Amino acid sequence: MDTIFWLFAKTQEVVIMRILTSSDLQTLLDFPSVIDAVETAYQDKGTGQGVIWPMIYHEFISDQADMDIRSGYLKSQHAYGVKLLSWFAENEAKGLPELNGTVTIYDDQTGLPKGVVNAAALTGYRTGAAGAVASRLLANPDATNLLIVGAGAQALYQIMAQLTVLPHISTVTIVDLVAPQKATQLAETLTQQLSEQFLPTIDTHAAVYERLTTQLSHLTVTASDDLENATKTAQVIVTATPSTKAMIQSDWVQPGTHLNTIGADMTGKQEVDETIFKTANSYVDDRQQAAQVGETQNAIRANILQEDQLTEIGDLLATSTQNQWTPNQMTLFDSTGIALQDIAAANLALEKAETLTAGHSIDL
Amino acid sequence: MDTIFWLFAKTQEVVIMRILTSSDLQTLLDFPSVIDAVETAYQDKGTGQGVIWPMIYHEFISDQADMDIRSGYLKSQHAYGVKLLSWFAENEAKGLPELNGTVTIYDDQTGLPKGVVNAAALTGYRTGAAGAVASRLLANPDATNLLIVGAGAQALYQIMAQLTVLPHISTVTIVDLVAPQKATQLAETLTQQLSEQFLPTIDTHAAVYERLTTQLSHLTVTASDDLENATKTAQVIVTATPSTKAMIQSDWVQPGTHLNTIGADMTGKQEVDETIFKTANSYVDDRQQAAQVGETQNAIRANILQEDQLTEIGDLLATSTQNQWTPNQMTLFDSTGIALQDIAAANLALEKAETLTAGHSIDL
Repeated sequence: MDTIFWLFAKTQEVVIMRILTSSDLQTLLDFPSVIDAVETAYQDKGTGQGVIWPMIYHEFISDQADMDIRSGYLKSQHAYGVKLLSWFAENEAKGLPELNGTVTIYDDQTGLPKGVVNAAALTGYRTGAAGAVASRLLANPDATNLLIVGAGAQALYQIMAQLTVLPHISTVTIVDLVAPQKATQLAETLTQQLSEQFLPTIDTHAAVYERLTTQLSHLTVTASDDLENATKTAQVIVTATPSTKAMIQSDWVQPGTHLNTIGADMTGKQEVDETIFKTANSYVDDRQQAAQVGETQNAIRANILQEDQLTEIGDLLATSTQNQWTPNQMTLFDSTGIALQDIAAANLALEKAETLTAGHSIDL
Repeated sequence: MDTIFWLFAKTQEVVIMRILTSSDLQTLLDFPSVIDAVETAYQDKGTGQGVIWPMIYHEFISDQADMDIRSGYLKSQHAYGVKLLSWFAENEAKGLPELNGTVTIYDDQTGLPKGVVNAAALTGYRTGAAGAVASRLLANPDATNLLIVGAGAQALYQIMAQLTVLPHISTVTIVDLVAPQKATQLAETLTQQLSEQFLPTIDTHAAVYERLTTQLSHLTVTASDDLENATKTAQVIVTATPSTKAMIQSDWVQPGTHLNTIGADMTGKQEVDETIFKTANSYVDDRQQAAQVGETQNAIRANILQEDQLTEIGDLLATSTQNQWTPNQMTLFDSTGIALQDIAAANLALEKAETLTAGHSIDL
């Protein structure tokens, strides 16, 4: 091999990879776009255009530190990739984030890496979007009362995503059974936080921007410790807690209510009394995963459901994206989290960053 | 939640991640260190300190484009991570590298990402090091004649790694049955390329630097198209080709010879006549993987070996790292590539980069 030719060939091969940090994502992602991207990802799973590869899980310290690797291929976006997300409970005491990780996205035409995205920062968006896709499809489109159970890190994202798809929500009730003071604190600052964190990235010329601005300015936000009463008056309910026993009793839930159960993602987790699966039309993001680690696991263990009876939301979306709500039917979406959400949201951020030449670009 | 506290908490959480490009690796990695790191990784696998998680493979276009995801945990280095490597044959015509990918490394004490490393650039080092670990353990330490079969991208790395561990090699013979002119061209420029590419990163005060400088200046390099004769005169043989049928016949191989078969990493690949496994003491990097996709697959198919009889090199290294050569015994190491090699090499590069504040550091 001629040395000069060899060196020349090497210098020709420019591989540009983009890095998107937490603060890049704050300026690049807007909920209307992320919700659409996650809807497409679910739909692609339903049509076979989205493929999930086996998940890898490792626990470093029992109930204290673990990690998982999720990967997949979103053909409609010409993107495949891998996410590694770790959780170290002791980090909080060290002044470090508990969740850390990256999503790396590759181009299916060349195999070149498109970029690396902060996975922890992406998680709020893609998980908020999951609940919003389900509510847009299944909830009463005229719903006025939203109940959020759990005032943790997910709450802000879940509420903003729900407001984005439910234009008539005028009352948000926040319940946190473990730390009621967190619900009170969140209620006090909610509209300010939502406005500051999520409105700036929405196109000011889009109708949704004006509508959300108005909706936020008129929003009534209340903290409550009466979960029974809050459940009875809600038309849309989001649970986002690490609970391991049912908090919501099924006879509290009114006909026509839609629930998004976000918290359950491990064996032993539960947020809602499993008998709700007897009457609610239920949907999952991934059949096998929901049966093992989702809210659905409890209904399966109680023999109320069988794994092969579960319907993936992607199968429904593959048929129609039109709202399916009927007045007397309860619906439930069990979100356990799939790689295609992360790939869709990360790819969206990377494409927006390319247009705006945002983030760090590195010739790998 | 108090907004001020929340903002303060966010700004405290600095997560620094380092990116190492192909040219960073060229200035950071030296073969003596990479060989030691890969030896430790194999040893860790033998003692259970190194864990490999299931491999994920996807083919985009049959025989034209694929990718795999390999991951694992190297406890001795407090590092775990994931590598995604893609191969797109059509890239060469597009002026793009055929191999692309990244290795991402995380700290097992916090879950924080340590860095992202160009996986394609790492591959030459970690694969060269694999063969060198085996030769240091199994080959005649006084060997003077090295045969390399295959003059492709791996050849430079394999030769330099062998010279690093075999101080008496004075003759290198290069055979390429498919493209003999590549062997001729490589032979002409070999010592210059090795000196320019690999000597600058070795500590000039280390004994190995002076020895390699001298060894390279006296090296006789020959291209040959007579594989039978080249095999008969070699004491150490490295095969690094994409061959799918045996090139080396077992009766050409002399007693006391050590072989590293590097090429086979997919079903249907073969470089050496499988009857060699009847007489050679053979070792593999990973039992299951070698049995399925390594050189070993052919001996298993021919009923010369059974999977449960295979010995991992890590099991041998866990007992002793002393050279095991005996004059009349042929030995063979079947290298298929495991995530622990990539994690070891990437982690080494990241730690050296931290000391030298090299690469790009990004607050993720």
